Amino acid sequence: MPMNPSAAQLRIDDQRLWQSLMDLAAIGATPKGGVCRIALTPEDQQGRDLVVQWFQQAGLSVRVDEVGNVFGRRAGTDPQARAVATGSHIDTQPTGGKFDGNYGVMAGLEVVRTLNAHGIQTRAPIEVAFWTNEEGTRFTPVMMGSGAFAGVFGAKDMHLQQDGAGISVGEALQRIGYLGDVACGAVPGGAFAAYFEAHIEQGPVLEAYDKPIGIVSGALGQQWYDVTVTGMDAHAGPTPMELRHDALLAAVRMVEAVNRIALDEAPHGRGTVGHVQVLPNSRNVIPGQVKFTVDFRNLSQAGLDRMDAAMRQQFAALAAQCQCTVEMAQVVKFEPCVFAPDCVASVRQAATQLGYAHMEVVSGAGHDAVYVNQVAPTAMIFVPCKDGISHNEIEDAQPAHLAAGCNVLLHAMLARAGVA
Amino acid sequence: MPMNPSAAQLRIDDQRLWQSLMDLAAIGATPKGGVCRIALTPEDQQGRDLVVQWFQQAGLSVRVDEVGNVFGRRAGTDPQARAVATGSHIDTQPTGGKFDGNYGVMAGLEVVRTLNAHGIQTRAPIEVAFWTNEEGTRFTPVMMGSGAFAGVFGAKDMHLQQDGAGISVGEALQRIGYLGDVACGAVPGGAFAAYFEAHIEQGPVLEAYDKPIGIVSGALGQQWYDVTVTGMDAHAGPTPMELRHDALLAAVRMVEAVNRIALDEAPHGRGTVGHVQVLPNSRNVIPGQVKFTVDFRNLSQAGLDRMDAAMRQQFAALAAQCQCTVEMAQVVKFEPCVFAPDCVASVRQAATQLGYAHMEVVSGAGHDAVYVNQVAPTAMIFVPCKDGISHNEIEDAQPAHLAAGCNVLLHAMLARAGVA
Repeated sequence: MPMNPSAAQLRIDDQRLWQSLMDLAAIGATPKGGVCRIALTPEDQQGRDLVVQWFQQAGLSVRVDEVGNVFGRRAGTDPQARAVATGSHIDTQPTGGKFDGNYGVMAGLEVVRTLNAHGIQTRAPIEVAFWTNEEGTRFTPVMMGSGAFAGVFGAKDMHLQQDGAGISVGEALQRIGYLGDVACGAVPGGAFAAYFEAHIEQGPVLEAYDKPIGIVSGALGQQWYDVTVTGMDAHAGPTPMELRHDALLAAVRMVEAVNRIALDEAPHGRGTVGHVQVLPNSRNVIPGQVKFTVDFRNLSQAGLDRMDAAMRQQFAALAAQCQCTVEMAQVVKFEPCVFAPDCVASVRQAATQLGYAHMEVVSGAGHDAVYVNQVAPTAMIFVPCKDGISHNEIEDAQPAHLAAGCNVLLHAMLARAGVA
Repeated sequence: MPMNPSAAQLRIDDQRLWQSLMDLAAIGATPKGGVCRIALTPEDQQGRDLVVQWFQQAGLSVRVDEVGNVFGRRAGTDPQARAVATGSHIDTQPTGGKFDGNYGVMAGLEVVRTLNAHGIQTRAPIEVAFWTNEEGTRFTPVMMGSGAFAGVFGAKDMHLQQDGAGISVGEALQRIGYLGDVACGAVPGGAFAAYFEAHIEQGPVLEAYDKPIGIVSGALGQQWYDVTVTGMDAHAGPTPMELRHDALLAAVRMVEAVNRIALDEAPHGRGTVGHVQVLPNSRNVIPGQVKFTVDFRNLSQAGLDRMDAAMRQQFAALAAQCQCTVEMAQVVKFEPCVFAPDCVASVRQAATQLGYAHMEVVSGAGHDAVYVNQVAPTAMIFVPCKDGISHNEIEDAQPAHLAAGCNVLLHAMLARAGVA
């Protein structure tokens, strides 16, 4: 379905997009320039109300589902066509930034506003969504709304999830007025024909390679572990090197192994030890126990399986080498995600036609799009963020990059929805 | 000066020694079988009063110096002879054991009781001392009393040292009745002719080699450092391995280097990282900063200098390798100590004559004897402790080993003091 010439020339309004981001960021703004708008709090309610108001002003018909996911729909000309959708989340980390999630929602709104401004009708309906509680800061699990939409979590189960103060999700949704009646996963006219999510990269790759657009082909699977190394604590002075059971020495060799195992799975393997606890953690006592975490990521399950096996074999050997013992427990698992090739192709084609420098990347982090991909063909568009920093009040992004990503979103969606 | 035949047959009373240790351990006894008798507390006062009472019952004349060091003197037959002394400390760690320090004082008392029981007169006077605040738990510095005796610390300066509640050493000494008037370092008749200190090993060497007696030839010097490695924290998922500034990866390589540097200085080199703090210490965040400690020990200053230089060179290279920076600050220094060869020889000779299996060892930890060695010829006698464990309520030692060490002390002292 070739676009008509005028549609191909269509560009979003950079300034309007930026202003929407700044206006939304004013709600829950922190003194350091970040945003604190934790899921289902009064600040989240204020943010939701503003976005819903903008949706309505843009002519979208709004529906809210059982877990508070919000969808704004712009009708198409073909009553049989399934919607082409976009979205992200507007909840933030406690010391979050202005762009994580918010960008994807404002970009979707900007696509609609652009179509409105130019009087463009699409064959298929267009939808813009924002998903409840992507960050998982107050309520677990993370990506609650998109997970419930995809049927990974039951809506009723989610209602029972409680925060630290014992307030349930169901109660919190009711308090802020977003306990909707649409069944999770139900979409008028049937499942989304396609779903695109624009997002800041939250990593350093696009900036390092100087590309404004990342074509996201998939998301890394994750396997997280808790590891405990046990030796014997002893005085640093009276205990000769050869008589030690130094749990830290074993642990540092394991950290080195985690790094090596990830490098062996280049380019997509990642291995991180982020948390370390040393016992008794006293300057002149040889550590008797060290607890640490392992975060393995890879683009294939086979790759994750290789990392798991290498870790178990090497950790056991390293513990024995230091006369220690080791226990490993897997505590989290996310399957690797491969986005829909035809959606990825639409993103690539849009970036190419728009003349933006681009590269194929994978998402190292989880996103709502990973769950939506289970029920609709999905792809993501990444734009650079400054120094790769996110989940931080200093999170920043360039207006030109945000506009480029939004133009790619516009044209990828138009390609799928068709200009009437 | 050969001993007369009856003196050569002299043996201490194993049971009396053990009973004294148990009686003293009852003061400040903890539910887990340890002792909490922190320096200059009411418990320390009770312990001191009991030991002074025992000293007096054994006929010793007691004097107390300006920092609360207590000396019990048994006169010799030669009014010109300088005293042959022994001792240790009776203060403990908050969760200390029954033997650390206490053994050396009770062994000295048992030597006197044995001489008394057999009517043995010595040519030189015999002294038994207990030194104030060896542990340094409540007041710093550690080994305060012996350090002041040796002139390393001024008595007036020590009086001003305060605990966490703002109580000074001078005030605390007065409260418990041990602010003496003898000048620090003054000994009737002149400086000690020799000083011997019996102590549990607080390490695993004697047990590992199955020797009841350690002939202690010296004590390791110590240099302690605070190290800070700075990289950049970033999300574990979106940050590829090659774009990381992983402060933990740099730090674990430094821990490995500390271990290697110590092994290169075998048999006396020791290198320990006991304390580690990772920031932000979150499971899925690449650590941006790691702070850790280094404890280097060696028997020579040249050896410590080599360790220092190797550390500085290797840490800088390892930081650069991981695109991090490193700062190192030396925070503590104790000079290496070589005990007096003639005193060490007296200990060796006594152990040999008594038929005890023995080996030469060095002390990895500090002891009062290290300071006393600066003002009098000194040596130490080690006996094994169970699993090398000390500074712990489960600290334990075998009565037979404690008796053996005490017999070695008796005969080493008799050899120096001479039987009249």
